[in-house]
Amino acid sequence: MFPRYHPGAPVSKKTVIVLGIDGYLGWATALHLSSAGHDVVGIDSLVRRRWDRECGTQSLIPIKTMPQRVTLWRRLTGHRIDWRPMDLCDARAVTELIRDVQPDALVHFAEQRSAPFSMIDLPHATLTQVNNLVGTLNLLFALRDHAPKTHLIKLGTMGEYGTPNIDIEEGFLTITHNGRQDRLPFPMQPGSFYHLSKLHDSHNIQFACRIWGLRATDLHQGVVYGNHTDDVAMDAGLSTRFDYDAIWGTVLNRFCVQAALGLPLTVYGKGGQTRGFLDIRDTVACVRLALENPAGEGEYRVFNQFTEQFSVKTLAEKVRDARAAHGLTTNIIHLPNPRVEREEHYYNAKHQKLLDLGLQPHYLGDTLIESVIDIVERHASRVDPVELEQPNVDWRRGGTAGWRKPLKKAAADRDASHRPVVVSSKSPASTIPLRGTEKERRVAQTR
Amino acid sequence: MFPRYHPGAPVSKKTVIVLGIDGYLGWATALHLSSAGHDVVGIDSLVRRRWDRECGTQSLIPIKTMPQRVTLWRRLTGHRIDWRPMDLCDARAVTELIRDVQPDALVHFAEQRSAPFSMIDLPHATLTQVNNLVGTLNLLFALRDHAPKTHLIKLGTMGEYGTPNIDIEEGFLTITHNGRQDRLPFPMQPGSFYHLSKLHDSHNIQFACRIWGLRATDLHQGVVYGNHTDDVAMDAGLSTRFDYDAIWGTVLNRFCVQAALGLPLTVYGKGGQTRGFLDIRDTVACVRLALENPAGEGEYRVFNQFTEQFSVKTLAEKVRDARAAHGLTTNIIHLPNPRVEREEHYYNAKHQKLLDLGLQPHYLGDTLIESVIDIVERHASRVDPVELEQPNVDWRRGGTAGWRKPLKKAAADRDASHRPVVVSSKSPASTIPLRGTEKERRVAQTR
Repeated sequence: MFPRYHPGAPVSKKTVIVLGIDGYLGWATALHLSSAGHDVVGIDSLVRRRWDRECGTQSLIPIKTMPQRVTLWRRLTGHRIDWRPMDLCDARAVTELIRDVQPDALVHFAEQRSAPFSMIDLPHATLTQVNNLVGTLNLLFALRDHAPKTHLIKLGTMGEYGTPNIDIEEGFLTITHNGRQDRLPFPMQPGSFYHLSKLHDSHNIQFACRIWGLRATDLHQGVVYGNHTDDVAMDAGLSTRFDYDAIWGTVLNRFCVQAALGLPLTVYGKGGQTRGFLDIRDTVACVRLALENPAGEGEYRVFNQFTEQFSVKTLAEKVRDARAAHGLTTNIIHLPNPRVEREEHYYNAKHQKLLDLGLQPHYLGDTLIESVIDIVERHASRVDPVELEQPNVDWRRGGTAGWRKPLKKAAADRDASHRPVVVSSKSPASTIPLRGTEKERRVAQTR
Repeated sequence: MFPRYHPGAPVSKKTVIVLGIDGYLGWATALHLSSAGHDVVGIDSLVRRRWDRECGTQSLIPIKTMPQRVTLWRRLTGHRIDWRPMDLCDARAVTELIRDVQPDALVHFAEQRSAPFSMIDLPHATLTQVNNLVGTLNLLFALRDHAPKTHLIKLGTMGEYGTPNIDIEEGFLTITHNGRQDRLPFPMQPGSFYHLSKLHDSHNIQFACRIWGLRATDLHQGVVYGNHTDDVAMDAGLSTRFDYDAIWGTVLNRFCVQAALGLPLTVYGKGGQTRGFLDIRDTVACVRLALENPAGEGEYRVFNQFTEQFSVKTLAEKVRDARAAHGLTTNIIHLPNPRVEREEHYYNAKHQKLLDLGLQPHYLGDTLIESVIDIVERHASRVDPVELEQPNVDWRRGGTAGWRKPLKKAAADRDASHRPVVVSSKSPASTIPLRGTEKERRVAQTR
């Protein structure tokens, strides 16, 4: 089944199933592990592409189909990725997969991963929590029954912690209370139905480790930025997603798109919201470190997976400053915050365990920001400026009138309006699109 | 809609929806609130009766249908309970209910509430978590959109806390760490997929209070014993369920059935497992106290709802001693523990808030134990001794071969075998049924 052996393979070659291989990080991770000589099986239901159609969003960078991508990867590197379309919510399929493959490890990205998507309305909140919970329960029982020694590497989120007024530890905290002491799960305060779904998973997984002796690493990941790993950058056909819209986009990618278009960077609220961040190259490295240094039998461990913490405002300033170095002016504006969150707060989260395993962080610098802006400029014709305007999901009221925009209709609009998406590093002033007109059209469309 | 006004009504009469009115506690609570002059709407999907058929279990005390019960209640007291069959997982029905009734409060018992049931296998774990989560999400969104001032009184469980080595506070804990301090959710370590589902709910509800300003009381309830409240005791037709089997039964009720049959009391493991307990009369009083002293806008509060804590072994000894006072000998035996839990541990859980609101506890004494045994003796012909044998769900392996026993088949077996369920306070020795034979039959049946 896995006939190839890579000359640069690590001492201990692993068979690993990447769940959610079609996503932003799943794909980059699968290539990284495959490149490192591990045998990779990739599964995905491709639901992320369907959600794009539902939301009227799309990856800025065109991405190939899964069969095209794995074929190209094999042609370029000789590595085989065993691609299997499958829905993790299909319990029988999950059981058969685990029983047949007998993997050393699972890397589990296969969840609905957008906080705004989960806050649109009741059906989206329910979909998020049920989808994420059921998929993970299916995995846990399949592991118990068919592969109890397999190491589950689960993508969690730093957002499970919220913003407590004390230092955030890695999963557990020693608490002294009324003269007694215990090491207990860190108290969690997630900030969306999505983040809550990850916390529900964390509790279920921790329980399964305790009662069944399973082994799991819960990667409480920060916000990822960037798009290029060595593998992804090898060929345009190997590209991974780049999301910049208000539902799927992460904040730095979004700022870079705004900067490339000469639009103001839109900070939600005061911008003092501080979070952990990391480069996509560190994401794939962290997963590999977890894979190659597995948890023990019955062990549930948490790694805080980020390299630096920034406030949103600081991030905006970094983008502005990187542009200023080239003589370009970038404005920062503050929008009413669609989320319910503290905008000024203490934040100090530990992230030592992955460093101890050997992580060599890529810190955020001007070069990275410029490289992301370069990417945006190469795909400028695909930018939909409407996606860079007001956020379209509010934590209090849910999705606004414009949250759902059928892609084809939007594309037709774009063609018809000849909207001036002129992207240039040289003339930011000329690039601001006709937002007023567009907005009126959008509102009319959705009524 | 609620034309009657009770002369003894409290100063502030409330309109309250009891969700899960057909259950052990839902029914007793509905009567208590109705009796106190509140206007009660009761909903239930009747799924608990279907689960009985699936598991081959039944209430020791026969219970009437919902229409029969509410009709009888009205005839006896003049109080109207507005009974509406409805599934909480039906989002549209929930929305219409909340919009139409505009209740002052919801009392939410409508969840799968058995830990062993949730541990049978993957489908039962998934059913438990999805059912409980989706029903509660439906409520939260309906409240946000149609009745944001309504007070949600949610039945949680002391089992959310697990057994930490520090004192258990009521929901929140002030933590000092590295010189900083915050008041944070108490760290939770639930012990089954059922208990986990309650924790997931707690997190979702807490979040909804924070972002939408909803008001909620999460009653972290201990293990309930007893069967009679003033209202339930009024007429046999008003009886509430009495579960003693290994899936639905609570421990003290179960011991009382064993004692009544002269069977040994079966303690799981060492029996040092310590939990909070309360009398069913205190359950209904606590819910009423929460109802009449609502949470504030945006407030999520936790009351630990129990009155005393006992180890399982101590409980068994109490039952034994109550019997010994009448010259009856009761043996206590220890079975291998089907659960994964600490059998000797520190346990000290606070339960002050309901006392502060005026709760007058009914502490566990010989009288209560004797009254429960009296109940059992009155319904002795309905006892299925097989249900008192080895537990049929194991935390590590799930449901054993005998967990599922179609009720009709079992009843037929019982009739055919003339099993000697002779129950008497006087001759315990004669009452031990033909367990060996029965067991062999059961095993044959399920293969």
